[in-house]
Amino acid sequence: MKRYEALADEVAASIADGQFGPGQRLPSVRDTSRSRGVSLSTVFEAYYLLEARGLILARPRSGYFVSPAVTRPPEPDISTPVGDERAVQVSELVFEVLGHARNKAVVPLGSAFPSPTLFPWPALARAMGKAVRRLDPWRTVEDLSPGSAALRRQIGLRYLAMGCGVDTEELVITNGAMEALNLCLEAVTRPGDLVAVESPTFYAALQALERHGLRAVEIATHPRHGVDVSALASVLERHPVKACWLMPNFQNPLGSLMPDGAKQQLVQLLAQTQVPLIEDDVYGELYFGPHKPKPAKAWDRSGLVMHCSSFSKSLAPGYRVGWVAAGRFGKDIARRKLMHSLAASLPSQEGLSAYLQNGGYDRHLRQLRSTLARHRDIVLRTIEDGFPAGTKVTQPEGGYFVWLELPASVDALDLHRLALSHGISLAPGHLFSADRRYSHHVRLNFGHPDNPGIEGALRTIGQIAKALT
Amino acid sequence: MKRYEALADEVAASIADGQFGPGQRLPSVRDTSRSRGVSLSTVFEAYYLLEARGLILARPRSGYFVSPAVTRPPEPDISTPVGDERAVQVSELVFEVLGHARNKAVVPLGSAFPSPTLFPWPALARAMGKAVRRLDPWRTVEDLSPGSAALRRQIGLRYLAMGCGVDTEELVITNGAMEALNLCLEAVTRPGDLVAVESPTFYAALQALERHGLRAVEIATHPRHGVDVSALASVLERHPVKACWLMPNFQNPLGSLMPDGAKQQLVQLLAQTQVPLIEDDVYGELYFGPHKPKPAKAWDRSGLVMHCSSFSKSLAPGYRVGWVAAGRFGKDIARRKLMHSLAASLPSQEGLSAYLQNGGYDRHLRQLRSTLARHRDIVLRTIEDGFPAGTKVTQPEGGYFVWLELPASVDALDLHRLALSHGISLAPGHLFSADRRYSHHVRLNFGHPDNPGIEGALRTIGQIAKALT
Repeated sequence: MKRYEALADEVAASIADGQFGPGQRLPSVRDTSRSRGVSLSTVFEAYYLLEARGLILARPRSGYFVSPAVTRPPEPDISTPVGDERAVQVSELVFEVLGHARNKAVVPLGSAFPSPTLFPWPALARAMGKAVRRLDPWRTVEDLSPGSAALRRQIGLRYLAMGCGVDTEELVITNGAMEALNLCLEAVTRPGDLVAVESPTFYAALQALERHGLRAVEIATHPRHGVDVSALASVLERHPVKACWLMPNFQNPLGSLMPDGAKQQLVQLLAQTQVPLIEDDVYGELYFGPHKPKPAKAWDRSGLVMHCSSFSKSLAPGYRVGWVAAGRFGKDIARRKLMHSLAASLPSQEGLSAYLQNGGYDRHLRQLRSTLARHRDIVLRTIEDGFPAGTKVTQPEGGYFVWLELPASVDALDLHRLALSHGISLAPGHLFSADRRYSHHVRLNFGHPDNPGIEGALRTIGQIAKALT
Repeated sequence: MKRYEALADEVAASIADGQFGPGQRLPSVRDTSRSRGVSLSTVFEAYYLLEARGLILARPRSGYFVSPAVTRPPEPDISTPVGDERAVQVSELVFEVLGHARNKAVVPLGSAFPSPTLFPWPALARAMGKAVRRLDPWRTVEDLSPGSAALRRQIGLRYLAMGCGVDTEELVITNGAMEALNLCLEAVTRPGDLVAVESPTFYAALQALERHGLRAVEIATHPRHGVDVSALASVLERHPVKACWLMPNFQNPLGSLMPDGAKQQLVQLLAQTQVPLIEDDVYGELYFGPHKPKPAKAWDRSGLVMHCSSFSKSLAPGYRVGWVAAGRFGKDIARRKLMHSLAASLPSQEGLSAYLQNGGYDRHLRQLRSTLARHRDIVLRTIEDGFPAGTKVTQPEGGYFVWLELPASVDALDLHRLALSHGISLAPGHLFSADRRYSHHVRLNFGHPDNPGIEGALRTIGQIAKALT
């Protein structure tokens, strides 16, 4: 990340924090240059970038001011699921709707993946090439599940750096986070059991429940602060919940982030009720604020939290390397991994381990976060300008999804079909709930800043939505 | 493979075929040199190798003769399982017993893996290095399940070459064969269902049944000709079998190979009864005879055969690339793969695809087969010399396992514990049946020709077994 980008991000964070309020004057270019110890041109470039993001305004001969109109479209309200137990049947619809999102010719607003051009492929290739040339063949026998000792050490160090020590003994390397999540679900449920999920929730979680013959109970979830712990507590009192599958950090599709206090309450509640938490944290590195959010795992003292993550969204899509810090279930999960697929690809594990040792990961992440944050602002502004009156949209502080609530007369499946006829994909709200209650909602992906068609596609979707109201 | 090794293998095959009978004189070194167009020293080296393998004898001034005593220990009889339905509970024992086999200091007669030194690591590393440097990042999105199009083409070509055309549409790349087998099992069974397996059968198949809450019915299996199709037919008449999980080629642990006619009968029987076959064919490339055995899949017209294989035993352990040619279940399995773990490692897939295109695979396989065949002979002779009277042993024509039936007074778990105290692992027969009937049987691995301790370890096990009788 360049110096002016870093400065712009800091000022943006100060605006978001409320240190600089709407209409307030920013320190002058000269003062900022002096106080930060950067050149005048760096400050000018940073301010220019913030102007382009719509966060500040230049007034001739007066200086720079926080935009009076950082008015964004209103956010949706906290969800109000009915809270009863349901069988899950969503998988067929997911495949039907999202089969198109892999076609490169389609503008990928419905995709689950960020643009693959955002990742450091040449550096990964160098690390991988070196790792396979040096690979000790015996590692293929020794490094079966729980996985490469070197990589587990590297992952353990990253937990330490975020103030969340995990025992390397509880770390199991998997074939991406999705395998970790599935193995965790297998470990703590039997067919017919009940699992609590957010509402809305990631459709792959619903597909996993469906595949394992499990039932879902959906919990009220706030678009900014995540799952409502008191709503969960009351569900736990009334229903025989065997596990929770939640995303405290940058939930898919809402982008919500649970505050630390709520995470702590969540973990305490689950410890009291002895309900395991399957924590899906694949977007945790993609935060736009100044600090990496901790996982709920950080407050776990009972070993009931299984923290699942991967490198697929943050560093190396396609390498298929994820992991779980599985607490008291570590040994069981390692065995399940061994029985299901023996081990993750050793070249992938060793390549990533070598890359992490080289030390470029955090630099890459800073760049990636800054790119995504800027593109979020562009996408939010386009939505504000071009969507029907009454549209509500989340304002995520991480990840690469926004969740839209359109006027109730817009059916998201109609919107999906019409958008597709214009060569644009989107993820209709129907996919994100066991009872398909989010019928006028859509999830849009803002992780493709390099796609020149994105803004036009957003305007097209906005026009179609207006025509459907 | 060197020229003399190839010649030795051809002569060995002629002896196995019966072209040269016991005691028969071989063509002279001079005649062989002339007829084959190879040097005298090549013939001498080949004959020397055959002598070392115990297949021929040199008689001074008379020439070379086929050993009169190619007497090997007797083979076990066809198995006689009771044929009733059983819940499976073997997993805990498997982990307890085989946890030790991964310790490099232990002589790995109990290992499930061949020596990792038998594989072409430098060539694989070169192919992998090139593949990742050239990787198109968009492939990480486009090549999700069913997997890399280039690799699926290469695999399709290998099916064609063995006279077994499969549609690339039915090919799904998986995280090794084990994931393929598990996904197939999920696709055609529900918890509580009954699955037919060989007796004895590979413990990982039993573990998969246990994990999925399935019951097993074991079918009589011949140590040389594999599963008894008429025994299977009568079980299918009496029991509601939902799937068969079988290894027609070089079954683990027996090493048995079903003749083509039996494979055809098997496939016809299953088509008549509409029972899917999960065909585990991970050892098919490791044949010692002149021709690669076809899979049962080659006779499949109904799409009921799911043929699972991988590169893990034949080319690239640790790369975790397997596949299934899933017939009518292709689309379902591709979706299950997507839901369980999205895709196999793309670098692994692309590295192997590049290696296969370079064309060294068949040369490597010839060398590997020849090495394993020679080591089988050495191991069989050592067993003949050093084990208690009454020991029976299989004589596999492929793979890298022999299966021993010891005198009934020897408990294989005792043998395992005592062998381990001598730093030697073995796989006790208890692991290979749902009812633990193979209590005086062991599986030994002859895939570690480079381990200097193997022969001594075999003699030690023989002595312990004698002491236990």
